[in-house]
Amino acid sequence: MKRIYFDNAATTPLDKDVLDVMLPYMTEKFGNPSSIYSYGRETRLAIETARKSVAKILNANPGEIFFTSGGTESSNTAIAAAIHNLGCRHIISSEIEHHATLHTVEHLHSKENVKLSNVRLLADGHVDPAHLRELLAGSKERCLVTLMHANNEIGNLLDIHAVGNLCKEFDAIFHSDTVQTVGHYPFDLRNTPVHFINGAGHKFHGPKGVGILYVNENVKITPLIQGGSQERNMRAGTENLYGIVGFAKALELATVHYEEYSKYINDLRMYMAEQLQQHIPGIGFNGDLYGRSLYTVLNVSFPKTEKSEMLLFNLDINGICASGGSACTSGADLGSHVIRAISSNPNHIAVRFSFSKNNTKEEVDEVVTKLKDII
Amino acid sequence: MKRIYFDNAATTPLDKDVLDVMLPYMTEKFGNPSSIYSYGRETRLAIETARKSVAKILNANPGEIFFTSGGTESSNTAIAAAIHNLGCRHIISSEIEHHATLHTVEHLHSKENVKLSNVRLLADGHVDPAHLRELLAGSKERCLVTLMHANNEIGNLLDIHAVGNLCKEFDAIFHSDTVQTVGHYPFDLRNTPVHFINGAGHKFHGPKGVGILYVNENVKITPLIQGGSQERNMRAGTENLYGIVGFAKALELATVHYEEYSKYINDLRMYMAEQLQQHIPGIGFNGDLYGRSLYTVLNVSFPKTEKSEMLLFNLDINGICASGGSACTSGADLGSHVIRAISSNPNHIAVRFSFSKNNTKEEVDEVVTKLKDII
Repeated sequence: MKRIYFDNAATTPLDKDVLDVMLPYMTEKFGNPSSIYSYGRETRLAIETARKSVAKILNANPGEIFFTSGGTESSNTAIAAAIHNLGCRHIISSEIEHHATLHTVEHLHSKENVKLSNVRLLADGHVDPAHLRELLAGSKERCLVTLMHANNEIGNLLDIHAVGNLCKEFDAIFHSDTVQTVGHYPFDLRNTPVHFINGAGHKFHGPKGVGILYVNENVKITPLIQGGSQERNMRAGTENLYGIVGFAKALELATVHYEEYSKYINDLRMYMAEQLQQHIPGIGFNGDLYGRSLYTVLNVSFPKTEKSEMLLFNLDINGICASGGSACTSGADLGSHVIRAISSNPNHIAVRFSFSKNNTKEEVDEVVTKLKDII
Repeated sequence: MKRIYFDNAATTPLDKDVLDVMLPYMTEKFGNPSSIYSYGRETRLAIETARKSVAKILNANPGEIFFTSGGTESSNTAIAAAIHNLGCRHIISSEIEHHATLHTVEHLHSKENVKLSNVRLLADGHVDPAHLRELLAGSKERCLVTLMHANNEIGNLLDIHAVGNLCKEFDAIFHSDTVQTVGHYPFDLRNTPVHFINGAGHKFHGPKGVGILYVNENVKITPLIQGGSQERNMRAGTENLYGIVGFAKALELATVHYEEYSKYINDLRMYMAEQLQQHIPGIGFNGDLYGRSLYTVLNVSFPKTEKSEMLLFNLDINGICASGGSACTSGADLGSHVIRAISSNPNHIAVRFSFSKNNTKEEVDEVVTKLKDII
């Protein structure tokens, strides 16, 4: 059976061109990048070249880019550093953050007595900027604001500049989880008021097990993982050499093709939205589909029926990969904390379809036809 | 120029057979292992099969094996958990631990007021068991003992059973950094009195960027990296799928060929020791070469001269990869903390040669000849 993969927000297939640049580092070029002899120098060079490339694309200094094991480790590092190194004693976040943020801030709240506030969400899932200002203005202690750039389930995009400027006004530290946007949008970090952002290679056709943390040069932090002097003493452990090389290549390809891919993917998404509205009665969309929204994600709300409750299962039987929420929680089967936070309507079933450059209009047609059959 | 790689304790080349099992997961089998549909289930299955294989080889339960980004992250997790979850307020370690341990225990000592004691070392670099008993007996608080199984620089092997039994007697938690021995020796964890051990794939011809943490089922800990429910809520972040598959394969190959490889490598090492003694006047060996010693490592002490001070540099020029200490610190160029701890003689230059199954007697001959020329 042909499979249709509409879950690209969970992970994307590794690009052939990315694999090709990784392979030499999985065969002959294997030296430990921290070794001083030639084998080590050639792999050290590969890592520093990757760092420069990533920094250039994001318009940051190479010294602001640190390679990690992925987006989750990066978020953990940034949030912990804001508390332990930067004097933040009050975290302002939201209920619809990824669990990498949610669980980390809850842990700091319960174990280290850090104050925790959630900013109010508007009906379309966006953060209420007036409430954010209120929280910042009312705080007696230095704040960490941690709000994701694009929500991984409903696709809502944060106005990162507006929030960053607000943080600046109140001398708050600002971390934005950009796992769904690095490799999907251009960044200009030198002109963006943010202290920490993070990315994960496998979200944009790069390798799993590797990510980045951007740390603005104006803040100094200590590592989460301690040991050897890798990553300029900021992240200990022998470097995931091929992962790092692959990350940089994937980001480079994503950047070169940004205009083309983003338009193509957004058109697919809008076509699917239109087809669904035409063919499936009673459906709606979660988030701000026609407003500030990530072009890869379409979160569809189906009226709850016996059939729609079995929807993901039936899609899977038909070879269609889609998701009820974040992959990171789908094992838990508790439904989506994001949908719960923005909707009080229990009579809907939410399904996320998320797209990549590899998907086609024909696949959309096939999925819509199957959905008609199933519902 | 042909290169001779005698730095296998720093990292080893990835085996072709290991790469071959990784490649399908870098191409068609890319699903997020936490996703519930077929793409996800096939990669989830690969991870759980890898876990079962690793557990079986180490004679542990699959529930005791957690995949991480490497040995350093695993050590950090174990040590932090002993303090934060298991009530340890006194760490007993040694001056010759890897920096992944040293820097983590120093951090806990200085930032969280945990007591820190170093066990005395004997002249041959082994831990003094009488002093360890004394420290444990004299402690008013629960202890974490963290002592590495094999020292990465001088190769000394700890009697893990003796130390474990001593820990048991005093109700101490025992972590042993086994990064240099997992994949190099058989383990029988069900019959080994240890709470935590760790491994790194790239030390035994597996991939970089992946490791394991063994957590004995009798202790319950919380994660270092928080977020999604991966690794049964013990290690958040999308799994390094191909890394995990490669780790298991590399461990399987190392285990199948253990008798053959370990004898072959030890013979090479002893041959080199003998040749050096025959041809280079004034040399000696650091550690317990003829006693309890890792078969992959030969740490040679050269009389300090103008020429021997440039030894590593000249070896590199001649295409020979060897090391002055741990790769994780070689960038820092401060010399070896291990050699400083066991020797008060500043008139020696220490060079570590470390071997793998890929090395040959001819290479040893060539290196010894070159050393004669250089010195």
